[in-house]
Amino acid sequence: MSIDINSDLGEAFGPYVIADDEALMGVITSANVACGYHAGDPVVMDRTIRLAKEHGVDLGAHIGYPDRMGFGRRHIQMELSELEKHVLYQLGALDGLARPAGHRITHMNPHGALGNLACADRAVADALVRATRDFDPDIALLVLTGTQLEFAARDAGMRTVNLFLADRAYTIDGQLASRSVPGAVIKDEASVYARVTRLLNDGTVLTIDGQILSVEVQSILVHSDTPHSLEVARGIRQAIGAAGSAVRAISAHQAGS
Amino acid sequence: MSIDINSDLGEAFGPYVIADDEALMGVITSANVACGYHAGDPVVMDRTIRLAKEHGVDLGAHIGYPDRMGFGRRHIQMELSELEKHVLYQLGALDGLARPAGHRITHMNPHGALGNLACADRAVADALVRATRDFDPDIALLVLTGTQLEFAARDAGMRTVNLFLADRAYTIDGQLASRSVPGAVIKDEASVYARVTRLLNDGTVLTIDGQILSVEVQSILVHSDTPHSLEVARGIRQAIGAAGSAVRAISAHQAGS
Amino acid sequence: MSIDINSDLGEAFGPYVIADDEALMGVITSANVACGYHAGDPVVMDRTIRLAKEHGVDLGAHIGYPDRMGFGRRHIQMELSELEKHVLYQLGALDGLARPAGHRITHMNPHGALGNLACADRAVADALVRATRDFDPDIALLVLTGTQLEFAARDAGMRTVNLFLADRAYTIDGQLASRSVPGAVIKDEASVYARVTRLLNDGTVLTIDGQILSVEVQSILVHSDTPHSLEVARGIRQAIGAAGSAVRAISAHQAGS
Amino acid sequence: MSIDINSDLGEAFGPYVIADDEALMGVITSANVACGYHAGDPVVMDRTIRLAKEHGVDLGAHIGYPDRMGFGRRHIQMELSELEKHVLYQLGALDGLARPAGHRITHMNPHGALGNLACADRAVADALVRATRDFDPDIALLVLTGTQLEFAARDAGMRTVNLFLADRAYTIDGQLASRSVPGAVIKDEASVYARVTRLLNDGTVLTIDGQILSVEVQSILVHSDTPHSLEVARGIRQAIGAAGSAVRAISAHQAGS
Repeated sequence: MSIDINSDLGEAFGPYVIADDEALMGVITSANVACGYHAGDPVVMDRTIRLAKEHGVDLGAHIGYPDRMGFGRRHIQMELSELEKHVLYQLGALDGLARPAGHRITHMNPHGALGNLACADRAVADALVRATRDFDPDIALLVLTGTQLEFAARDAGMRTVNLFLADRAYTIDGQLASRSVPGAVIKDEASVYARVTRLLNDGTVLTIDGQILSVEVQSILVHSDTPHSLEVARGIRQAIGAAGSAVRAISAHQAGS
Repeated sequence: MSIDINSDLGEAFGPYVIADDEALMGVITSANVACGYHAGDPVVMDRTIRLAKEHGVDLGAHIGYPDRMGFGRRHIQMELSELEKHVLYQLGALDGLARPAGHRITHMNPHGALGNLACADRAVADALVRATRDFDPDIALLVLTGTQLEFAARDAGMRTVNLFLADRAYTIDGQLASRSVPGAVIKDEASVYARVTRLLNDGTVLTIDGQILSVEVQSILVHSDTPHSLEVARGIRQAIGAAGSAVRAISAHQAGS
Repeated sequence: MSIDINSDLGEAFGPYVIADDEALMGVITSANVACGYHAGDPVVMDRTIRLAKEHGVDLGAHIGYPDRMGFGRRHIQMELSELEKHVLYQLGALDGLARPAGHRITHMNPHGALGNLACADRAVADALVRATRDFDPDIALLVLTGTQLEFAARDAGMRTVNLFLADRAYTIDGQLASRSVPGAVIKDEASVYARVTRLLNDGTVLTIDGQILSVEVQSILVHSDTPHSLEVARGIRQAIGAAGSAVRAISAHQAGS
Repeated sequence: MSIDINSDLGEAFGPYVIADDEALMGVITSANVACGYHAGDPVVMDRTIRLAKEHGVDLGAHIGYPDRMGFGRRHIQMELSELEKHVLYQLGALDGLARPAGHRITHMNPHGALGNLACADRAVADALVRATRDFDPDIALLVLTGTQLEFAARDAGMRTVNLFLADRAYTIDGQLASRSVPGAVIKDEASVYARVTRLLNDGTVLTIDGQILSVEVQSILVHSDTPHSLEVARGIRQAIGAAGSAVRAISAHQAGS
C-alpha cells in the first residue's frame, strides 16, 4: 500500500512567515498552495511552486475567500456565480506561476471557511467543482469522506483524493467528531502515529467510542502552522515506512488507479 | 489593407464603472482587459471576456501594478524578479477566467506607469517580455514603435503589434510628441479621422511640424474612458471603411503574416 | 418645523466616481461619508469633507465592512470585538482628515450589509453604538425607527436622528415594507414629493395599505447613486420649502432639541 | 541623565506575527505602532495600544505607504497632497483606537521607504510634518540628526526627539555610515552595549574611523524584528541602568524640557 502526505504551504505574505515550507517540502508529497486570496502572494507562490517542483511534491491549489486580514477563516457572503469566478482566478494565477517553473496543478482543496462550507452545502460544493472542472477536468479534489464536496466531485465525474486526519477522532459514520467533544483532537504524538500505523496495516481507525471503522483514504493531512509541524510530519512519514508502506504523491495514485 | 482597433476594457471594479464596455465591444476588434491589479475583478473580467468572445474580439491582458487606489498610474518600486511574478499572476488569472468562456489570450500590453516605464527602461521591458514568453510564447506584445518594449519583444523573438495613436502628434523620429508640447494631443475629431484616412491610404502621418512620416502599424488605439469614446471609436471604424480598408483583429493579422 | 436632508457621499475611490458629490452638497444638509472601507479613500474623504464644510453640511461617518469589491453590501462574519475596532478605525480616520479641514463628525450610520444587520441584531447594534460612544459620546446615530440600532442607541444614552425614506412604503407598525412587496419602492417622483409634503404638514405617511401612520423623523434620506439623484434631492428640498418648513442640518436639530 | 528606548511594534497582521510585542513592551518606553498601511490592522492596533497603556509606554504613530505586500519598504510615487491625506488617515485611525483605551499619540515617525525619503527630501519631510501638525501640534517627531525631517520639524516649530541607533556606525558629520561600508552595522552585542554606555557617560560615539563625535539624542531605537530583539533590548536597558542613567519615555522628556 502507498499513501500521500499533504500539507497547506505557501501561506506566507510579503514579510510575514507562517510555516517552514522548505523543510516540510522534504517530508510531504503534496502541497496545497495558497493563491493570493487568504494568503500567499506572487513571490511566495513562485517560491513555493519551485520548492515543490524540486522536491517532487505535487502542486495543489488551496482556494480561499478574498480576505487576508481574516486569513480566509470567516465566511464572506457572495453569489455562487461570483464564487466560481474567484476559484477560476486563483487556479489561473497559480497556473500562471507554475508554467515557467515546469510544474502543474494536480489537485485543489478549499481553505478555511470556504472549505467548511463546501463540506456542508451542496450548492457551494457544486460551484467549486464546476469551476475546477471548467479550468481543468484532470484536477483531483482533496475531500473529507462523506462531505458534500465529495459527493459533488463524484457526481461531476471528477477524481477525489480522500483525506485522513491523523489527529482527529472519527465517529462510527465516518465523520470527524466535533472539536467540542472531549478527545476529538488527538494531541499525543504517539497516538497520532499509532493511528497511521493502524490505517496502513488494516485500513481502519478506532472511533471516538472505541469501535473499528474502515476508512478508504489516499492522503494524510499534516498541519503546517503549529510549532511541531515538522516533527509530526516526519513522525508520520516514519510510521508509514515502518508499516511497510510507501509515501506516494496524489498524482502517482491517480496514474496508478 | 486591414487594421485592428484596440481599447482598454474591463476597468470596472465592484460597483464602479468606467467605460461602456458592451457598446465598445461592438466597434473594436481587440480588447486589453485589466486583470484585477490596477482595475477589474474576477466578475468584471469574466463579463468582459464573454463580451469579447461574443463579439469576436481578441482578448489581451492589460498588465498593471498592484495598486487599485492609484489605478496603476503611479510607479511602485520593485525588483524585476518580483515584477515578473506579478505579470505571470495576472496572465494566469485572466487565462483562468478565459478558459470556461472558450476564449484565449492573444496579446498583452502593460498599463499606466508600468507601460510608461516599459517604453523607456530596457530591463523592465525585458522582464515583461520574459514573463509573457514564459507564460505563452504565442502572445503578441502591443507596442509603440521605437520603444524599449518593442526592442525587447523583437530580441526575444516575440511577435509585436505596433500601435497607432490617432489623437497624438508624432515627431519625425517616430516618437509621440510630449503632451506638454502644444498640439501634441489632437482633440478635433475630424482631424483624428483624417489621420486615420491618411494612415490607411499611404501609410503616413503628418508630424507635429508638418513633415511626412512613414509608419508601420497594425492597430489603432481608441480610448475607453472619455465621454466621447464610443463616438470616436465608431468614427475611426467608419474612416477605415471609407478608406477601403478592413477592420481585423490582432490574431487575424498574426495568422495572415 | 424643520428637517434635515442627508445623503451618502464620498463613495468615489481612486479614479472611480459614483455620485455628483459637489452638486448634491448644494442641496443636502448632512453628508454620510464613506471612510475607506466599503468606499472612499483619503483623497476622496478629504475632498468630500471640505465640500461639506464649504456648504455648511454636517459630516457623518458612513461605516462599512472592509470590502471594497463588495461595496460593503455583503456580510462578512466577524467577532463583535473585531467589529468595534473597525468602527473606531473608520471614525478615527475620518476625524483625522476632518481636523485640518476645520470640520467635525456629528453623526454616524452603518452602511449596506452592516446597516441591515444593525437593524435586526441587537448585539451588532450594541457593538456599533459602544464603539461610537467610546469615540465621542456627542455623535448622533442615524436610525430607522423601530430598529435594534435605534433601541441600542437610546439605551446607551446616545442621540438618534430618525430617518424618513421618502421613496419607500411603510407598514402600519412603522417598518419599511419589504422590497419584495409590490409598491414597496415608490418610483414616481411626484408621489415621493407628495409624501414629503404630507410628512411636513401633519407628520404622517400613508402606509402601503392606505392607513395613516404618524412618524417622528428628523431627516430625509436622498439616494446619491441613481441617475436622478440630484433632481430628486432638489425636488424634495423644494417640497420642504413649499410646505413652509425649513431645511436644517442634524447638528442644528440637536442644538435646538 | 535619562533616555527613552523606542521600538517599532504592532507590525502583526491578521494571523501573521512579527515581533514579541508583549515582551518588548516590558523593556521599552516608547512604541511606534503601525497604522494598518504597511502593517497592523484594527485588532492588532488595539491590542498594541492597550499593551502600551498597561506598561506606561508612549504611543507613537508609525506612518507608512499603503502597501502591505511590500511592508512599506518600497517607494510608491504620489503627490505630496495625497501623501498628507494618507498621514492624516493613519494618525486619525490610531487615535480612534487609542481613545477608548485611554491612551494618546505623543510622537510619530515615518516607516521604511517613506522614512528614508523623508530623511533626504525636504518637500516630503515638510508634507509629513505639515500633516502631523495639522492633526495635533503637540506630537513630537522621531528624527535622525541632520536629516531633512529634523529640519522640517524644527522649522515648523514641532518638537523633535533625536534617535540613536546603537547598532549603526556614524561618520564624523553625524550621519549613519552607509550599510554598504564594512563595519556600518554593528553585530556584536557587547559593542552595542558599550556604545550605549559611552553615549550616556559622555554624550559621544566613536565614529566608523575612530574619531569622537558628540551626539545629542533623546531616544535609542531597538529593533523588534530580529531573533535577538528582546535580548538586545534588555541589554541596552541594563547598560543604561549601569551607566547610572534612567529610562524615561519621550513624553516625559518633553514635559521635562
